[in-house]
Amino acid sequence: MSWPRTVKIVEVGARDGLQNESAEVPTAIKIELIERLAAAGLTAVEAGAFVSPKKVPQMADSKEVFQGLKRRSGTAYPVLVPNMKGFEAAIEAGVTEIAVFVSASEGFSQHNIGCSRAESLERLRHVAEAAGGRNILIRGYVSCIAGCPYDGAVAPDEVAAMAEALIALGCYEISLGDTIGIGTAAHIRKIIERVSANIPRKKIAMHFHDTYGQGVANVLASLDEGISVFDSSVAGLGGCPFAPGASGNVATEDVVYLLQGLGIKTGIDLMAVAKTGDWISRHLGRPNAARAGRALLAARQEG
Amino acid sequence: MSWPRTVKIVEVGARDGLQNESAEVPTAIKIELIERLAAAGLTAVEAGAFVSPKKVPQMADSKEVFQGLKRRSGTAYPVLVPNMKGFEAAIEAGVTEIAVFVSASEGFSQHNIGCSRAESLERLRHVAEAAGGRNILIRGYVSCIAGCPYDGAVAPDEVAAMAEALIALGCYEISLGDTIGIGTAAHIRKIIERVSANIPRKKIAMHFHDTYGQGVANVLASLDEGISVFDSSVAGLGGCPFAPGASGNVATEDVVYLLQGLGIKTGIDLMAVAKTGDWISRHLGRPNAARAGRALLAARQEG
Repeated sequence: MSWPRTVKIVEVGARDGLQNESAEVPTAIKIELIERLAAAGLTAVEAGAFVSPKKVPQMADSKEVFQGLKRRSGTAYPVLVPNMKGFEAAIEAGVTEIAVFVSASEGFSQHNIGCSRAESLERLRHVAEAAGGRNILIRGYVSCIAGCPYDGAVAPDEVAAMAEALIALGCYEISLGDTIGIGTAAHIRKIIERVSANIPRKKIAMHFHDTYGQGVANVLASLDEGISVFDSSVAGLGGCPFAPGASGNVATEDVVYLLQGLGIKTGIDLMAVAKTGDWISRHLGRPNAARAGRALLAARQEG
Repeated sequence: MSWPRTVKIVEVGARDGLQNESAEVPTAIKIELIERLAAAGLTAVEAGAFVSPKKVPQMADSKEVFQGLKRRSGTAYPVLVPNMKGFEAAIEAGVTEIAVFVSASEGFSQHNIGCSRAESLERLRHVAEAAGGRNILIRGYVSCIAGCPYDGAVAPDEVAAMAEALIALGCYEISLGDTIGIGTAAHIRKIIERVSANIPRKKIAMHFHDTYGQGVANVLASLDEGISVFDSSVAGLGGCPFAPGASGNVATEDVVYLLQGLGIKTGIDLMAVAKTGDWISRHLGRPNAARAGRALLAARQEG
């Protein structure tokens, strides 16, 4: 066991999470959510997505959210950008870091963004060039790394090819996402081993969904592989469009609880995150899916 | 990674699970629950507890449950027995395997069963002698292995001492329980390493609660230590008296999903367990806490 001494959490609840919640969330609540998370010590907090408001109405106010934020120095507030149109809107809003995504599977690329993997990379080339010219940081997502709702199995070679293509475009970090949450520990380790053949592990982040209850275990397996950046979502916000009623992103509270237990530094105030998770869950009228969050708050009330 | 090739699950939903649920469950439903679990391939299904009906009203009908069961040959139906009175009632009911428990911490022993750890072992000596004379199998539980709600920290040495005492009494297997679910992977591995200094790993079972979201990750950590028996609870039945509203036992569905993914044989029909988890959750009027169970059923409805 040679785990990293420090781990960075990229908090995706306000974007990947809320995007998959059915409740409408007022702009002011989104702003408060992001500010509370940043205040709790999260140094990377996804703030929104500059995407089609018709396709993703939950993110239609991303400009207002971003511009309404009291931004902390030292905290990154990346926003998701699918194309040049989104990029230009993000720049206009004052964004300094963007995230782009591609799918490791052909079927998901076609269904999700209506073009092939190769075409999606071509689209992003323009975004990347424009971003490079303005010193805008780019984070890359590869989705469906452990399986695809359309194609089924996805080979680690396909994941590695897309990750390498994003690195070639200039992404400083690649987040490998098990979008439908089906991966288990050995499979996840194989993917990391394959991707890290050509990309340093410090540039690889892992992004897990708790659909099949494997999120925290997959974080542990990734730590065993030397991964030190994880995406997670306060209160486990989010869901899975391919399994309605299923769990969402792995909960930040559960991941930070694990990391604290392993003696790994995160700089995060777990109780502050737990309170924020409780607050946003109440606001959404959904159960708090962060088990560590629920337990910490319950134990506190008992004590 | 040298994981075991086969793993045995001890299903504890009908005892440890229901004992911590507030809903009253009719005897016929308990019988159906146990029979469905055994039919799904679980070869060890805890069937009840012969304890004070005043203290644990949820288990007051254990005799009727046990006697009403259509028992399968090759399946074990252990019942919890705290003392000679319970033992005699269990024998009268026709039980052939019992489980006994002690606490790794002094405070939990005093609060939970009203006597010291040493006194609890002395009590169990009589039970063990009586069981030995009748060829009744005895499984031993050690609770609070990773921490105690009264004493706080619990040393692995204390866990090992209690586990060794139970082996000396004749238990064929010791289940090490993180009763309040606070342990994380490195701590769990330390406990296993300490206990296995004097007890073969094949005689050690691990029993996790998902209170802080660590259940499946702790199963993975235990597999890394060569452990091949796990207690779990269909639908994650149960709770935590020390953190009301917190999660219960780690869900059988989530654990079996992990094991299948790792290529480890269990002999369990996961979809049959998932359906049983859904059925009992509806009956109890509680959310199904098995994330793999929810996802499998949701994906099936979509497909």
